[in-house]
Amino acid sequence: MQKYTIPTLIINESIARANIKRMATKARNNGLSFEPHFKTHQSKEVGEWYRDEGVEAITVSSISMARYFAVNGWDKITIAFPVNILEINELSNLSRSVTLTILVQDREVLTELTTLGNTVNIFIEIGAGYHRSGVMHDELDRIGEIISSISNSKHYFKGFYCHAGHSYKARSSKSIKVVYEELESIMSTLKSHFIQHKPHIAVGDTPTCSVVDSFKGIDSIHPGNFVYYDYTQTQIGSCNISQVAAYLLCPIVAIQKDRNELIMYGGGVHLSKEAFESNGQKHFGLVGQLDENGNFEAFKESYVKSISQEHGIVSTTPDAIVTLRVGDLVAILPIHSCMTVDCMQHIFTEKGKLLSKLTK
Amino acid sequence: MQKYTIPTLIINESIARANIKRMATKARNNGLSFEPHFKTHQSKEVGEWYRDEGVEAITVSSISMARYFAVNGWDKITIAFPVNILEINELSNLSRSVTLTILVQDREVLTELTTLGNTVNIFIEIGAGYHRSGVMHDELDRIGEIISSISNSKHYFKGFYCHAGHSYKARSSKSIKVVYEELESIMSTLKSHFIQHKPHIAVGDTPTCSVVDSFKGIDSIHPGNFVYYDYTQTQIGSCNISQVAAYLLCPIVAIQKDRNELIMYGGGVHLSKEAFESNGQKHFGLVGQLDENGNFEAFKESYVKSISQEHGIVSTTPDAIVTLRVGDLVAILPIHSCMTVDCMQHIFTEKGKLLSKLTK
Repeated sequence: MQKYTIPTLIINESIARANIKRMATKARNNGLSFEPHFKTHQSKEVGEWYRDEGVEAITVSSISMARYFAVNGWDKITIAFPVNILEINELSNLSRSVTLTILVQDREVLTELTTLGNTVNIFIEIGAGYHRSGVMHDELDRIGEIISSISNSKHYFKGFYCHAGHSYKARSSKSIKVVYEELESIMSTLKSHFIQHKPHIAVGDTPTCSVVDSFKGIDSIHPGNFVYYDYTQTQIGSCNISQVAAYLLCPIVAIQKDRNELIMYGGGVHLSKEAFESNGQKHFGLVGQLDENGNFEAFKESYVKSISQEHGIVSTTPDAIVTLRVGDLVAILPIHSCMTVDCMQHIFTEKGKLLSKLTK
Repeated sequence: MQKYTIPTLIINESIARANIKRMATKARNNGLSFEPHFKTHQSKEVGEWYRDEGVEAITVSSISMARYFAVNGWDKITIAFPVNILEINELSNLSRSVTLTILVQDREVLTELTTLGNTVNIFIEIGAGYHRSGVMHDELDRIGEIISSISNSKHYFKGFYCHAGHSYKARSSKSIKVVYEELESIMSTLKSHFIQHKPHIAVGDTPTCSVVDSFKGIDSIHPGNFVYYDYTQTQIGSCNISQVAAYLLCPIVAIQKDRNELIMYGGGVHLSKEAFESNGQKHFGLVGQLDENGNFEAFKESYVKSISQEHGIVSTTPDAIVTLRVGDLVAILPIHSCMTVDCMQHIFTEKGKLLSKLTK
């Protein structure tokens, strides 16, 4: 391993590639189109790892992200975010060079899409279970009206997109499967109801796509986080620790021996302030070290107990503390890799290759 | 107000300048050196607003931040973060062009400082009450040993630096004053004990500096957050809402009428995921709008109830919801402005002037 001097995000390329291959194989075995969400990595180089597994169509969460990947050779892009009509000109420009699929949940928004430079594919977003954006799956009249409006426009009705984000609240693979079964049932009912429009069914959260082996009535999957996974996914039951591919290396800047704590250079501006809460205790990352191959080894009973802007406080054991020195690097397995990636610009593979990223 | 199309951070310059003037005046009236922390804004233009109030010495939290402000004409800089010995070369380079003050809490670290290009001033960091980095104030022997080591090196012992970060846990100006009185007493005792070394006493959290009017035995203050303040500071008792100078403008992308909720383009990658917790309820920002002068007006009973990577869910009232449309901008008063600033690159004053910022 190269010697880093400031908080640095390490992506273990061989683990990430294995995560991609596993998901691509699962999609292929189920006859699904695999259209991974790229918001997790936001990196053109990581995009190429997907291309190596035959991926041709991708998913993003903003127009700037779509533009970045379009420039880097991707021409089938779903923007899985409610259309922001204030960016209609940027969307219009993008529609000239890319086969674009967008998400809509309101007829009012459709009237704004008449000025788009090219035709686009439209998913109606379904909000089943998660209660964020999307039409509720049982609002059949409303859904029917939106389909009619799309059919009367120059754009194409593609089908239904549902992100079952409530799977993140599961705490076992069994309960993730329950979320998936409800989702499958809801989407199948919708598909039957609107069968004359031949709706494409798209789903895509990491927990269900990781845990479920057999997908019925689904046409495409769009997971993102699985490429790196993170501590939360190990606790949900989506993966085990050896499948997590992202770790933040942080210099130790002080050792508080009397409290069995390390002070590290690595805080909310690096990891984000997302916490995992268990038994009323907040947890900002698992703590360990990277071996020479860039694999994570957890220290016993060690975690990030608190973070401020640039500082992190690691709670550890008397055994670990006597082996560590100021100037050593600890590796933090993040709570939410998507957020940590978004915070960071210094990103390298375990072999020291720089990974570029969409800049804000 | 200019029309923005994506999440955009607005800094109300006239409010921020008034916040700076108030703190500068307070420092002057107390005979204190005012050495504000620049990690909150990270902006060379905002730095000039301080220069207009006579500020000459500043505080930062990383070497990259020190370098950025050195390039922009600041030559008296305190890096208020435990020295990261892995960056000793960068520190050495910086010490050639800037009067540098650094924080140390270990004698071991001092031995690493022998290679620095120039002499630097050294604060011993005191960890009283906050339990993050720093020597505890009652470890007098340890403190004495560190002072001796500094005196025997080529560097200067400057004094004691204490960030009373536990003032952020206060929930009234009265309890902030209690934190300050303890701090003042601790620092006075330390000063008396080591009076032969003429220690400079530096403190600097926003809550105490905002609430306290009379400082005894203190030589300099180093607050940062007060330039913009935020929702947390209004709840702590440091300021009122009209003194908050930072708001994130977010496009409404969907309206969930049945749930009295707005879906906005603005999530954890814009606001950070920092939450304010009250009565077991999490809160990710106050919701309102900006008037034509860029002043914030809160909607009644409206707050950001949940955020994911790019989405925010606003809980609001039936009265507000009927007046809002997809494509309108809402203004979010952030929970923690330092974190929101760090997330954002699109930053403008209320008059539409772009504010540049240290890039990561």
